[in-house]
Amino acid sequence: MKEKQQNILIIGAGLCGSLLALRLGQRGYHVSVYEMRPDLRKVDISAGRSINLALSDRGIKAMKLVGIEDKVRSLCIPMHGRMIHDKKGHTHLSNYSGREDEYINSISRGQLNALLLTEAEKHKNVSVYFNKKCKSVDFEKTTALFQDYNTKDQFIEDADIIIATDGAGSVLRKSYFLGKKFLFSFSQDYLTHGYKELSILPKENGDFKTYKNALHIWPRGTFMLIALPNLDGSFTVTLFLSYDEGEYHFNNLTTEDTVLEFFQKEFPDALALMPNLIDDFFENPTSPLGTVKCSPWHYKGNTLLMGDAAHAIVPFYGQGMNASFEDVVIFDNILDQKLESWEATFAAYEKTRKKDTDAIADLAIDNFYEMKSHTANPMFQEKRKLEMLLEEHFPDDYASKYALVTFNENLGYREAMLKGRAQDKAILNLLVDGNISTKSILNGDDSIDMTKEDLKTILEKIKQETEAILEEDKIAGLH
Amino acid sequence: MKEKQQNILIIGAGLCGSLLALRLGQRGYHVSVYEMRPDLRKVDISAGRSINLALSDRGIKAMKLVGIEDKVRSLCIPMHGRMIHDKKGHTHLSNYSGREDEYINSISRGQLNALLLTEAEKHKNVSVYFNKKCKSVDFEKTTALFQDYNTKDQFIEDADIIIATDGAGSVLRKSYFLGKKFLFSFSQDYLTHGYKELSILPKENGDFKTYKNALHIWPRGTFMLIALPNLDGSFTVTLFLSYDEGEYHFNNLTTEDTVLEFFQKEFPDALALMPNLIDDFFENPTSPLGTVKCSPWHYKGNTLLMGDAAHAIVPFYGQGMNASFEDVVIFDNILDQKLESWEATFAAYEKTRKKDTDAIADLAIDNFYEMKSHTANPMFQEKRKLEMLLEEHFPDDYASKYALVTFNENLGYREAMLKGRAQDKAILNLLVDGNISTKSILNGDDSIDMTKEDLKTILEKIKQETEAILEEDKIAGLH
Repeated sequence: MKEKQQNILIIGAGLCGSLLALRLGQRGYHVSVYEMRPDLRKVDISAGRSINLALSDRGIKAMKLVGIEDKVRSLCIPMHGRMIHDKKGHTHLSNYSGREDEYINSISRGQLNALLLTEAEKHKNVSVYFNKKCKSVDFEKTTALFQDYNTKDQFIEDADIIIATDGAGSVLRKSYFLGKKFLFSFSQDYLTHGYKELSILPKENGDFKTYKNALHIWPRGTFMLIALPNLDGSFTVTLFLSYDEGEYHFNNLTTEDTVLEFFQKEFPDALALMPNLIDDFFENPTSPLGTVKCSPWHYKGNTLLMGDAAHAIVPFYGQGMNASFEDVVIFDNILDQKLESWEATFAAYEKTRKKDTDAIADLAIDNFYEMKSHTANPMFQEKRKLEMLLEEHFPDDYASKYALVTFNENLGYREAMLKGRAQDKAILNLLVDGNISTKSILNGDDSIDMTKEDLKTILEKIKQETEAILEEDKIAGLH
Repeated sequence: MKEKQQNILIIGAGLCGSLLALRLGQRGYHVSVYEMRPDLRKVDISAGRSINLALSDRGIKAMKLVGIEDKVRSLCIPMHGRMIHDKKGHTHLSNYSGREDEYINSISRGQLNALLLTEAEKHKNVSVYFNKKCKSVDFEKTTALFQDYNTKDQFIEDADIIIATDGAGSVLRKSYFLGKKFLFSFSQDYLTHGYKELSILPKENGDFKTYKNALHIWPRGTFMLIALPNLDGSFTVTLFLSYDEGEYHFNNLTTEDTVLEFFQKEFPDALALMPNLIDDFFENPTSPLGTVKCSPWHYKGNTLLMGDAAHAIVPFYGQGMNASFEDVVIFDNILDQKLESWEATFAAYEKTRKKDTDAIADLAIDNFYEMKSHTANPMFQEKRKLEMLLEEHFPDDYASKYALVTFNENLGYREAMLKGRAQDKAILNLLVDGNISTKSILNGDDSIDMTKEDLKTILEKIKQETEAILEEDKIAGLH
């Protein structure tokens, strides 16, 4: 495969497509990227998606790969933990890790996307075309049909390979599905909850109205509100709520009075920071939350799905962008193997990668329940406190499921899921059975009179129980 | 809801549609059924699907509901267990249950369908129209567009409600998916294996060429052959094989020599009974194996999916037809509740039923691995022998996962799955850890020198371990 002479067509210049173009440009390929929206560096557009995102270690590993870690860090606001708000407005901070250097970062989707595009275009062999909407892909001929947004002209582009990074509504994926040329496994699963973006604006002096370095959560069992900080002093707030169940739901929040009543009752401290609530609420759309999985991702050596186009996930683990960035890292690893053909390359990539994107999709659903409900559950809180202590005192010996997923970028999502779930099960069962006691942790004032020796014993019990659970599952799961 | 005056339109007169028409006819509704194929009682057609099927207790419960159990029994050939064939042609029978009255039945799809149609048409308020293909459903207007196969004329039918029992390729389901009027969760998942139907013809005197009262299996780890008896002395044989992996696969079985070589090597005893193999192999299609799940099944009180249209599953638990028949039983139960509207009826039906059809879909995938591989695995065989002993000696105290699913028609599939999986895990782990010993069972000659007292102790250990597993899962699975 004479890779340097290959023409690669990328559909979609979002976060994944821009990074992929940059990396393939660095590798010397001739890359053309077609994006349906205008250039977000010139026109003030919403990318149609969430305004800010959580960048963590898997994403940062990708930034390191393309050499822009420092530039990206300058766009980040570290979030060290979850700031939990109860109904009375009381708060407590639950760290993401007991290790100081483990935190996640709030970053603007637009700013990061702009940076990636600019870096990609520095390569002469990379061209990005905006306002060109992909209408369909002929995966047998390796051509794509586009329409220019301004002139309405349609044109066909030919390439050696086409990689679609065109997001959850991928045109290539639709062509696979409707084409019926091969057995295409596909799923779209919606939660019964939707989401709506709101905002906490900065103070008049530009300061943040509430604590900056945390991901704020107002967990209410069957629904929740969250907030992530932006560099301009604002917070992007998101309400996750059922469409049609419970006392308040999106379908019955139709008047100003009802919305105010709902926030007054459930999120009074947030409401106090949101004089703009009503405008936001009725101007912004309510959007669905869905998971997309499919297989195969590629058709022969012609076309390949990557990023959300291949595996759209719900946002509750803050891993959507990170997973898409990691796709590029894994694909880059496969390219290093210099396999004999694009077909072999695509097949090896999917074989390596799909088990992990399936896992993060399932983990993200798990975290939906954890965030909206378990964060307010005393036993869950006890478990988290214990895990923080273990991570603090035995930083090399213990990592929670959250840490395995978020901060262990060299461990695949699937391994992280299997180990993390077994660990969670071990801790919860040990706590319930009274086999480990953490009473001293729960003095109310969070004072710790547990000795390191006590903790060491607890850690050993957790490890043994985790191993036993994994072994029993292995024996039972003969396949 | 004045149910007796309602006009109900059923799309599809297959097994589920015919039974539904019969039951709704018995309840007094005005029922019209439209079927795209000709009347299978007048024209010799393949229904396009497997020739014979396994009818078991859930299906029989439905036959009792409509009062035709005796007529159906006369079409059945009991199969008491799996006759396992190894590569040398050695066989051993592994019973489905340790209780004598628990067995499954081979039945002809065509004969059963014909009986159901005839019974349905005995009701003046039931009409069945053949050669009418449904082209689309307008679920807002509760109308369906049909085309007459002979005249090609198209016509629209209006009804109070439309129930689609039009199988895995359901037109109503496609209308839900493509309509995008509401959030429609949908999945189609294909196995990497396909299947092909073959046959063992009767002896010249009409006798069966091999043992009649069993489901024959030739398990080979990554593929398998099975055979079910027919009333005419033949067996319908099905080969389950990968499309493109392994030494032999469907994509490379392209010449007579290769097919003969494959059967000679893997299934010599079956080949000896199949002089017609080559004709069958090259005349019959290779078909895919897929699972379909979706939600919601209904649109308001207008339309409802039922049977394979709502939940197509792979055939490895022999439960596809039984699950579709059980749908009618559950729907009938909901009708007995006399809810205030069709919308409430459909919603209650889906809420009650979907968890169970999701479970049987997953169980059927489990059994794919069990049949093609585990049935040839010594530890699995040890477990099965132990379970047979327990069922024989403690018939009221123990039921294997297979028995829970197949013979416990008053237990939902989901409960059967949860309990059955926990039990399997318990037994396998107890065996591996040496906590129960069944050495005496494995004397090679299957002689049992274990006392009932020993067995009782083993049963208690299995029960305790099963309870512990379920409890631990409950604690860990906070949602």
